[in-house]
Amino acid sequence: MRITLLAATAAIALAAPAAQAATVEDKAAATLLGGAKFAKAKASLKGDYDKIIQDIITLTEIEAPPFKEDARGAAYMAMLKAEGLTDVERDEVGNVMGLRKGTGGGPLIVVTAHLDTVFPGGTNVKVRREGNGLYAPGIGDDTSSLPVLLAFIRAMNRAGYTTKADILFMGNVGEEGPGDLRGSRYLFQKGKYKDAIKYFISFEPGQPGRITNAGTGSRRYKVTFNGPGGHSMGDFGIVSPAFAMAKAMVEFGKIKAPAEPKTVYNVGILEGGTSVNSIPFATAMTIDMRSNGKPELDAEEKQFLALLQPAVDAENAARSTAKGKISYDAKLIGDRPVGTTPLDARIIKIATAVAKGSGVTPKYGAGSTDSNIPMSMGVEAVTLGSGFDTFRAHSLEEGMKMNPPEDLKNMAVGLATVLTLAEAR
Amino acid sequence: MRITLLAATAAIALAAPAAQAATVEDKAAATLLGGAKFAKAKASLKGDYDKIIQDIITLTEIEAPPFKEDARGAAYMAMLKAEGLTDVERDEVGNVMGLRKGTGGGPLIVVTAHLDTVFPGGTNVKVRREGNGLYAPGIGDDTSSLPVLLAFIRAMNRAGYTTKADILFMGNVGEEGPGDLRGSRYLFQKGKYKDAIKYFISFEPGQPGRITNAGTGSRRYKVTFNGPGGHSMGDFGIVSPAFAMAKAMVEFGKIKAPAEPKTVYNVGILEGGTSVNSIPFATAMTIDMRSNGKPELDAEEKQFLALLQPAVDAENAARSTAKGKISYDAKLIGDRPVGTTPLDARIIKIATAVAKGSGVTPKYGAGSTDSNIPMSMGVEAVTLGSGFDTFRAHSLEEGMKMNPPEDLKNMAVGLATVLTLAEAR
Repeated sequence: MRITLLAATAAIALAAPAAQAATVEDKAAATLLGGAKFAKAKASLKGDYDKIIQDIITLTEIEAPPFKEDARGAAYMAMLKAEGLTDVERDEVGNVMGLRKGTGGGPLIVVTAHLDTVFPGGTNVKVRREGNGLYAPGIGDDTSSLPVLLAFIRAMNRAGYTTKADILFMGNVGEEGPGDLRGSRYLFQKGKYKDAIKYFISFEPGQPGRITNAGTGSRRYKVTFNGPGGHSMGDFGIVSPAFAMAKAMVEFGKIKAPAEPKTVYNVGILEGGTSVNSIPFATAMTIDMRSNGKPELDAEEKQFLALLQPAVDAENAARSTAKGKISYDAKLIGDRPVGTTPLDARIIKIATAVAKGSGVTPKYGAGSTDSNIPMSMGVEAVTLGSGFDTFRAHSLEEGMKMNPPEDLKNMAVGLATVLTLAEAR
Repeated sequence: MRITLLAATAAIALAAPAAQAATVEDKAAATLLGGAKFAKAKASLKGDYDKIIQDIITLTEIEAPPFKEDARGAAYMAMLKAEGLTDVERDEVGNVMGLRKGTGGGPLIVVTAHLDTVFPGGTNVKVRREGNGLYAPGIGDDTSSLPVLLAFIRAMNRAGYTTKADILFMGNVGEEGPGDLRGSRYLFQKGKYKDAIKYFISFEPGQPGRITNAGTGSRRYKVTFNGPGGHSMGDFGIVSPAFAMAKAMVEFGKIKAPAEPKTVYNVGILEGGTSVNSIPFATAMTIDMRSNGKPELDAEEKQFLALLQPAVDAENAARSTAKGKISYDAKLIGDRPVGTTPLDARIIKIATAVAKGSGVTPKYGAGSTDSNIPMSMGVEAVTLGSGFDTFRAHSLEEGMKMNPPEDLKNMAVGLATVLTLAEAR
């Protein structure tokens, strides 16, 4: 999960309900939130709290590194099946899913959380409990959301809800960094439901009211500079990929990125060389470019790619190429599309109405999540906080606090959003 | 071992014996080489050939990474003791040595080869034999020299040589890269013989006639650039150590190094960053500067160190320092002094005379070896080839060829140099 920017102005514009008349979505949310069935649903969540925590621990302790989500996926698929979903399956890339059928004639809604964590295989994922805290790599992002979806299903069943929409509950792969959204990408580009999905809700750690309706796009490259290499003394004077790369970095650092829509760049990882007294035969930099605007991201990428050859040419001109020239290879290692779900889309209006109806101030933001894919395709999508108070995501000190009244209140907002969107009765 | 430069002009100047009258050293060498005892000494080498090879295999298979030469040192010390040397000991840093006493009143000569290899612990050092080749990491540099010194002692004993000089035979530690010549440094700065040593001969792989009479000096730094670090999107606009380092590299690449005495610089290793979408909190470059001239090396080092702060300042000016500034730390990780043994020094004249008298054309050169230390202190020192045909030093494919007639002829040149220098009778 990467949610990094809050569009505060938009939040203010829409978070001023006093002066506005109640919309159709406000009314639908109010009806849902005030219904007797929803009281039963909330009671179900409450009764499930310990089970949710136990499922979080169980799933956290099944490691799920990028591209290696299978063991956790199998466990989660069994859990989905146990909740009585139909059409439970694992797709070709490892997404696991099952349907809660609607009454017919309604849209298909995907409700998902991601299986993968950022941590490599072999990381100690044993959950440690301290007071009201639970600690383990990956426990918050996004493992803490997976059991919440199961609790939603049980709450719907116990409360006796039927929905007009079909709801596809899912644990998807490939959300984190190197996964490059491959689970979501497959779902929308190749999966069997690809043309049927009308709404997409991705649950990530965080509080309700945080409505991620914009997908920050990113392009990531690993650029390798290659040269003849040699001995620092015997071959002195020949071209060095280190100097070519340095020149490219300096020029990259001069790019003026627009502030709005926010556009950024970064040199994330540097590597190269084998020993202090060898002229490297290869050096590499791994870089990140992001924007909330597609034209801005395209323009930045173009500028970046255009500065590489001149940097290489400058080095080939500055030193001897008698033993070989410097060349470069720019490999695209990440490509997340820019996308937005407009504030007047039904999914956003419902998320807003439910938040407000629950006494939560909605805040809109941009992120880099599984929603980027549907957003970029014009499918209504949103990423919502699943409710637990989590912290230190992506660090070995990752953890979450257990505060049942607050956590349950937060979960209920997510559940009500799904129910309202699905036209539950 | 690093021997990288042949001073061809000097070689030509001195390798033209036809027009020159025989010097006192030429005469001494001729007397030694033509003596009946030397024939016996050569016969001893020949009879020892298989033992030399066996000792090379034995020692190669005892790994000796930088700073972990102890096991090999103990084995070599036992071998020195077995040859009847006196005062056999291991000094504080791990050099092992023993004396072959002279007849009295003569100088002290150190004859050494280094124990350490470049290979880390755990490298497979099992020797593989293929045809007349022996293969294992470290077998050539410098393990192949150690048993040759033992064969020298046996040859001297069997031939009945007495010497005016005392000869300290040694296996020394710390010659390779990170060792930074610590064995030789200790010997000359703190060891018990430090004020007594008049001549120093270091044997390294290579052919006789290669006379390394100049020590290339080097200064090596690992420069770490530190900054606040952050998220590539959320913290965009803050200073990055990657850009500061890039600027420093670009400026480093602009230094004009003198061609004579040869002076060079290199960016050897780049590292830094933790993930593509994190602004690094640290990046580092490991650099090498070398020269055959002390003032030139000092001047280059001064230029290098002077460009670091401006590069850091430029980055602190170019981006926001709200979360912290970039700083740098330049750590000296290698410091090998520049030194020369003049061509008219007795040790060089004798090495030259013995080479010529053996039908070998002397070639002078600069290197970065244990001789750097005595050379820098004005002690007469030279690095000579111990005789085997070795190849791919410092690579996992390192090896040596066995060609007894050639190898024995080469070893005899080294032995005759020691004997002539020691005024053997």
